Amino acid sequence: MSGPGFMTLALAEAEAASARGEVPVGAVIVKDGQVIAQAGNRVEELGDSTAHAEMLALRAATLFLGDKRLEDCDLYVTLEPCPMCAAAISLARIRRLYFGAYDPKSGGVEHGAKVFDHATCHHRPEVYGGLEERRSASLLSRFFAERR
Amino acid sequence: MSGPGFMTLALAEAEAASARGEVPVGAVIVKDGQVIAQAGNRVEELGDSTAHAEMLALRAATLFLGDKRLEDCDLYVTLEPCPMCAAAISLARIRRLYFGAYDPKSGGVEHGAKVFDHATCHHRPEVYGGLEERRSASLLSRFFAERR
Repeated sequence: MSGPGFMTLALAEAEAASARGEVPVGAVIVKDGQVIAQAGNRVEELGDSTAHAEMLALRAATLFLGDKRLEDCDLYVTLEPCPMCAAAISLARIRRLYFGAYDPKSGGVEHGAKVFDHATCHHRPEVYGGLEERRSASLLSRFFAERR
Repeated sequence: MSGPGFMTLALAEAEAASARGEVPVGAVIVKDGQVIAQAGNRVEELGDSTAHAEMLALRAATLFLGDKRLEDCDLYVTLEPCPMCAAAISLARIRRLYFGAYDPKSGGVEHGAKVFDHATCHHRPEVYGGLEERRSASLLSRFFAERR
């Protein structure tokens, strides 16, 4: 599986989240070309405001590797991470971050707090935004349109 | 118990963390004058770079209340939260944040990303920094001095 394939898998996690009534966001973590963790948003199911797809995937990858540092790992997520997730991605030492839709309202990478753009950010992943942007964004807009 | 008492309890959690070989940070969450969650840093024990005292306390409080929104809850922590924890505090709708030592190197409230100071931050707690600042800071400096 290659980069686009990993984002397709993240999109499938986002669709599964949507089917559970969750804001559709999915994340996948890859090391040496292998998926080592994947997760969808579970904020409503777990009743936990921090249970974003990225946080769940980071914890799963950490458990899988038995290492708090996810060296040489790349994270694919369908939406620009919020500041919490961006900072967690930095703490975990993720190598590359690929995200789908930009999030001007709540994003923390290209918007708002811009977590990686400060001298106090001790690790900045390589960042690639807008990968499968349209599919990621349309999942989200469909989800919110159905609830209005 | 009152404000200073809650910070003393957070300091006890920080001391317990130090005894476990963890960077000494402790956190307490209070609702209606009662402690509903308390935690110390467990990054090393859990091998999880996101297992900061605040994150663990937020999740424990969420489980305790059965509600993803920690309305009318106040969080006491011995160190200025990092951007991940600051953003998590915002997502959880914490009412007031009291912290001990300022953290110019890694803090995300008064330093660096200043997570609460952006229009994209949807909930900003009241923030009180420097509560029991000296005790909080000396725990940290003693911990790092012993390891150098």
